Amino acid sequence: MDIDTKLDTINFPPLKERILKNGICLEGGILKVDSFINHQIDPNLLKEMSIEIVKRFANSKIDKIITIEASGIAPAIMLAFFLNVNVVFVKKKKPATMDNMLTTTVYSFTKKTNYDVCVSKDFLAKGDNVLFVDDFLANGHAANGIIDLINQAQANLVGMAFLIEKSFQEGGKKLREMGIKVESLAIIDSLDNCEIKFKE
Amino acid sequence: MDIDTKLDTINFPPLKERILKNGICLEGGILKVDSFINHQIDPNLLKEMSIEIVKRFANSKIDKIITIEASGIAPAIMLAFFLNVNVVFVKKKKPATMDNMLTTTVYSFTKKTNYDVCVSKDFLAKGDNVLFVDDFLANGHAANGIIDLINQAQANLVGMAFLIEKSFQEGGKKLREMGIKVESLAIIDSLDNCEIKFKE
Repeated sequence: MDIDTKLDTINFPPLKERILKNGICLEGGILKVDSFINHQIDPNLLKEMSIEIVKRFANSKIDKIITIEASGIAPAIMLAFFLNVNVVFVKKKKPATMDNMLTTTVYSFTKKTNYDVCVSKDFLAKGDNVLFVDDFLANGHAANGIIDLINQAQANLVGMAFLIEKSFQEGGKKLREMGIKVESLAIIDSLDNCEIKFKE
Repeated sequence: MDIDTKLDTINFPPLKERILKNGICLEGGILKVDSFINHQIDPNLLKEMSIEIVKRFANSKIDKIITIEASGIAPAIMLAFFLNVNVVFVKKKKPATMDNMLTTTVYSFTKKTNYDVCVSKDFLAKGDNVLFVDDFLANGHAANGIIDLINQAQANLVGMAFLIEKSFQEGGKKLREMGIKVESLAIIDSLDNCEIKFKE
């Protein structure tokens, strides 16, 4: 595991600008980025973000990208294309036709309930150098599930890349304290009073 | 709507070869392509397939790609990247923070039940020239849901692109009879006796 715990506080300007232009801040710490990340995707912004992730992990050996369906698929695919490595997406429902699976339980903060996720042992194997990619980092529950799956597989977690981190929730802090290299392209310190404040 | 009803029966060689090499045929007409499409994705094959779709719709004006989460996201993203247009993914669950939605009901053949899907009116609008992309075409229920959403939005369906079509199920035939340009990169005539037979 990469032990570079440096907190990269630099927000990636194209994403920061887009959030300020098109992000919508709702009551309760919710940031809507539907028009360019979650519901509609701008492939040019996605390309720019993926290349920024490539740069931030320029010194890491990456054999595979891992993500959780569905929101992480888009950035994971684009990143894998540029890095020329396979993507594996962890499934939220165990497919009927799939066996030989690793499973773990993830707590959903929004739904206040646990759900199981799984990945085939065929696609996450001992010694694989794996980068986890997702759209949002908040409480880090999905990330913890990924850590468990990677440990079960005896694979090697290279680091974690997120498009947007909410630093007022505890996920990023805890993951970095574990020694994981966490890179987020935009770090939001506060959404209080429906005002978007980035970490500087 | 494009009225080119020509059935393109040519299987895209890189996909056909990969299916023959890594596809697994199970009882009941199931084709597992987990190792390169559904669970693990090979970005090079994805790139080649996307470029092939670009070619097959070379004469069509495409403003937007539409897909349904989660399995269609990967090909839709890559295609949108090459065509330099936005992707919209139709959601299987109505997000709590989303209003101004178009909704329709899709029948799930595997689950023998209906489910609702939705898309924001902000991202599927009157006059948009839309290409629908998905991984599999079987009975065409998802495709019919997309047609309904596109009609509700008064958008224009340019056509539909699928990675794999099961021609022994009725979706492709019905969609082509409706005058829709349907392009599938691999068309499978039969999976009887767990043998993969392509349409020639």
